[in-house]
Amino acid sequence: MKKKHFLKLALLFTFVGGMCVAQTPPSKVIEDFKPSELNQPGKEYPQVNSQGYARFRVDVPEAGSVRVSLGLGGRGGTKLEKMEDGSWMGTTEGPMDEGFHYYHLTIDGGIFNDPGAMNYFGSLRWESGIEILAHDRDFFALKDVPHGNVQQILFSSKSTNTVRRAFVYTPPGYGKNLTEKYPVLYLQHGWGEDETAWSNQGRVNLIMDNLIAEGKSKPFIIVMTYGMTNETKIGGLKSFDIAPFQTVLVDELIPYIDVNFRTLNGADNRAMAGLSMGGFETKLITLNKPAVFSYYALLSGGVYAPEDIKDKSTVKLIFESCGSRENPERVNSSVKSLKEADFNAVSYVSENTGHEFLTWRRSLKELAPKLFK
Amino acid sequence: MKKKHFLKLALLFTFVGGMCVAQTPPSKVIEDFKPSELNQPGKEYPQVNSQGYARFRVDVPEAGSVRVSLGLGGRGGTKLEKMEDGSWMGTTEGPMDEGFHYYHLTIDGGIFNDPGAMNYFGSLRWESGIEILAHDRDFFALKDVPHGNVQQILFSSKSTNTVRRAFVYTPPGYGKNLTEKYPVLYLQHGWGEDETAWSNQGRVNLIMDNLIAEGKSKPFIIVMTYGMTNETKIGGLKSFDIAPFQTVLVDELIPYIDVNFRTLNGADNRAMAGLSMGGFETKLITLNKPAVFSYYALLSGGVYAPEDIKDKSTVKLIFESCGSRENPERVNSSVKSLKEADFNAVSYVSENTGHEFLTWRRSLKELAPKLFK
Repeated sequence: MKKKHFLKLALLFTFVGGMCVAQTPPSKVIEDFKPSELNQPGKEYPQVNSQGYARFRVDVPEAGSVRVSLGLGGRGGTKLEKMEDGSWMGTTEGPMDEGFHYYHLTIDGGIFNDPGAMNYFGSLRWESGIEILAHDRDFFALKDVPHGNVQQILFSSKSTNTVRRAFVYTPPGYGKNLTEKYPVLYLQHGWGEDETAWSNQGRVNLIMDNLIAEGKSKPFIIVMTYGMTNETKIGGLKSFDIAPFQTVLVDELIPYIDVNFRTLNGADNRAMAGLSMGGFETKLITLNKPAVFSYYALLSGGVYAPEDIKDKSTVKLIFESCGSRENPERVNSSVKSLKEADFNAVSYVSENTGHEFLTWRRSLKELAPKLFK
Repeated sequence: MKKKHFLKLALLFTFVGGMCVAQTPPSKVIEDFKPSELNQPGKEYPQVNSQGYARFRVDVPEAGSVRVSLGLGGRGGTKLEKMEDGSWMGTTEGPMDEGFHYYHLTIDGGIFNDPGAMNYFGSLRWESGIEILAHDRDFFALKDVPHGNVQQILFSSKSTNTVRRAFVYTPPGYGKNLTEKYPVLYLQHGWGEDETAWSNQGRVNLIMDNLIAEGKSKPFIIVMTYGMTNETKIGGLKSFDIAPFQTVLVDELIPYIDVNFRTLNGADNRAMAGLSMGGFETKLITLNKPAVFSYYALLSGGVYAPEDIKDKSTVKLIFESCGSRENPERVNSSVKSLKEADFNAVSYVSENTGHEFLTWRRSLKELAPKLFK
């Protein structure tokens, strides 16, 4: 059983080589490069163009070699060339998929972040991030609409003997409408990420603020905490067991949230969702604890079979999604069989994206309007 | 006037060369090095020992030179030596001051962060951070006490035509005690930092949680936003003018906080404090807006003269502090003259620290119990 889980995990969380490259290079690179919107203040590089190419420039005059992990994954990323001014520059060989990508530099054999870019926790470390402008980016843009807040909470966990961190999105108006109570979505990150991922890379707050401003989603609370509670070593999966995290989430975090936030109680007002490994955790916990959650969502994180679920009456929604470069057939056929078994099941496939955050931002945008109806 | 301001700023915000080195090296380095508590998950380096030495190790096998900006500032920091395994290692020549330090690596002439350390926004970029264990670190430690939250808010600013970010600390119990209202401290970062500094480097939430748990401080709200509103270029100070930031703070942020948080209104329930350049801003704004704030605090950020203040009756407290390696005489003589002029003035000097965050963490610990009495 444990071995089977490990194999499943290995399949789920192995990144596909070359996933970032969208298509065969067009014949001409358009010279309309602009600084990536995830750059540090005032930094000109990295840049992206309207076709999805990324261009890098790093000042390291005495280096012998500089490579960027992005670009043609299987072929070692993008090699930069030394310029006359001592900087190193290069452009990806082809356009990349729209959306957010993690990357890093390899300088003289050492791994470093790009000093031009902001950092995001993924692959068990703070990595550089770059944003290839998505044609549909409006849904996660910062707009002048009423904004919810993202707050860091610290809660005591007896089972792990630690004080643990979570981030909580509260919708616009939460601080003013003091008699209103809200349903709650518990939302998990993927392997190698942490509780910062959904708000930093995922833009969960902006997606929700925009949906709520357009009247497309009910306002609800979103809780994001660290899901790799059982590891003996950082990122270790060999001994994966859902029990420790399930205890933290169900017996410690949910009660803390229900006391410290104005929540609507009961399974009808609770959803769980996760991306990649967080989807795997969501599946295990929702099946183990049918009295706790009524809405289930797996984003690039496996599927349910109808026979997994003992009591159909406790499940209000099953949502399954992935990128078109992942395994949409699996999601679609799972949802088909769930529907045939009379579940309220919904599939979503993000076009032209892989196992990356634009898939999950879009999935959240599709999921949110279907929750707590 | 503008020129005078610029000169003052230049004096205030110039970092003192070599400020990180505490004393003459002791004869023997004790080999009890442990990973810095600000390391990324699972990273063994950088390390610190019980004397305050820092040791660095970076894997960059083909580099020609690796230096760390920490150590003997005026003499180019700490030069690392190439080891047989391809890594570069080195230890500071002497022990460093207790507390938090920003640093970076210079690798083959390029500036990068240490892949072992977490990043903190300072010097206009995300820098590496290291923590030399302070003998009094208990007051900012993460303990199993009731915790307040730190929340990111996004507020609309008509004067700058932007949506702006602030972080708001709400004390333990804020989410439960829905009829309670709280006073507010507006707390500014220094030059080259941003609105993340006080909670990340400053540990403002842990300091407050601990003080409140010990009954030493009243619970209050703390609001931290970006203070360099008027810059034409990132970090630019030549055209410094307090008006744009004053408008954002007083006319836009304070009203937003008063609507969206349960605040006690009026100057008696409002304090302003800032470190370094944030102190300079605090002085200007409190003097320009005597009807808005009653508690003033400058942390390594200048002093008030009695004649600066037109109406003594509106001022409940003036707090001025700095590190003992800065200019304590200036703080002490200012407070002496303020007291002689019948102000409720308090000075605080942090022992054996300079223009760095341990000075400001300690200053906040001293300040908080004196607010809103």
